[in-house]
Amino acid sequence: MEIKILQDILESNKNAAAEVKDLLKRKKIYMIDMMSSPGSGKTTLNDKLIGALKSKYRIAVIEGDIKTTKDAERLAKHNIPIFQIETDRFGGDCHLESTWVKKCLEQFDLDNLDLVIVENIGNLVCPAEFQLGDDERMVILSVAEGEDKPAKYPLMFNTSDTMVLNKIDLLPYLDYDMNELMGNLRKVNPKIGIFQVSAKTGEGMEALLKHIGDRINAKKQGA
Amino acid sequence: MEIKILQDILESNKNAAAEVKDLLKRKKIYMIDMMSSPGSGKTTLNDKLIGALKSKYRIAVIEGDIKTTKDAERLAKHNIPIFQIETDRFGGDCHLESTWVKKCLEQFDLDNLDLVIVENIGNLVCPAEFQLGDDERMVILSVAEGEDKPAKYPLMFNTSDTMVLNKIDLLPYLDYDMNELMGNLRKVNPKIGIFQVSAKTGEGMEALLKHIGDRINAKKQGA
Repeated sequence: MEIKILQDILESNKNAAAEVKDLLKRKKIYMIDMMSSPGSGKTTLNDKLIGALKSKYRIAVIEGDIKTTKDAERLAKHNIPIFQIETDRFGGDCHLESTWVKKCLEQFDLDNLDLVIVENIGNLVCPAEFQLGDDERMVILSVAEGEDKPAKYPLMFNTSDTMVLNKIDLLPYLDYDMNELMGNLRKVNPKIGIFQVSAKTGEGMEALLKHIGDRINAKKQGA
Repeated sequence: MEIKILQDILESNKNAAAEVKDLLKRKKIYMIDMMSSPGSGKTTLNDKLIGALKSKYRIAVIEGDIKTTKDAERLAKHNIPIFQIETDRFGGDCHLESTWVKKCLEQFDLDNLDLVIVENIGNLVCPAEFQLGDDERMVILSVAEGEDKPAKYPLMFNTSDTMVLNKIDLLPYLDYDMNELMGNLRKVNPKIGIFQVSAKTGEGMEALLKHIGDRINAKKQGA
């Protein structure tokens, strides 16, 4: 019974995700689903990405949080469209679903957008199960979380297109084994794109910005 | 329909939690439900706690992971009973439930135990909803996760008895506002017990060890 209901939810999520994908294709908008543990630095990363990209591209953000509008407030200075989903109002949900993303998208002026960034709930488990209809699933991992996370949360890393390893400015203060991380990562997803950055200091951000810019342009050209 | 099923699951979890509570009371065993984000340092903390407590108390561990037995392997050197739950086998669950904990407890020699530590799935959302029948809910928060987590994940911090703020050895390398954290924490739970530690360097561990020792002794005396 429980399993049947879960299947129904996943099925209806899949259908809405397909509709989102169609809509984004028609409007030539690139969408990133940004996922991570709590405290990996998603909002700081977003702040820096938006700051660097907003002069060239028209950006909107969908913020997912269980409670508070803190993240949306932190990004408000950029004067871009931001839609906040507080899942607490739907019963404290631990992930975003494509039906909600679709409703958010319908609030935006889609003829004047190039990029939508979805900041998912801070959770390395549940968001992995729900496709949103995006172009790129990006998992953010802080070096402070250790090297074993791809092995312990395989679905998240296996279904992601890119991994952004954040907070590399902390590496000198941790006993971090980069080879172990990369070994664990390649075992679950040999094809994943990898970016090592410090959103705080700016280190490594250029490659990530170039990647996102290239993908936006490719989508514009109908890729 | 979905809500009804969730209520059924929560209800059956609550019943099994009451059974666990009874069993632990009868056997005078103290049980801690340790919860946190992925990568907060739960296993390192556990390693240090067990190392310091095992000469005085008889300890068992229930390890929750979605995938891998890495954490159980890390603790194997202590030669104490460890039961690993890989939730991947039940469909990748994002939390532990009291029915599984009850089954694990039944594998242990309960007449020869003083302390059971449950290391829950790394997830700041879902485990908060499931009472396990323990004596103490302990949330571990790494300073690398930032100051806003109690505000953004209120149920976790509101239902916990103690918070262990871990990795304080990293404070000199972060722009960390301790007052902001404490303000956020007190707003959701003014009564929570707070321990600041570095499981890595050992700083602050004495107070936490004394707290756990006191609670084990109190339970032995029928408190």
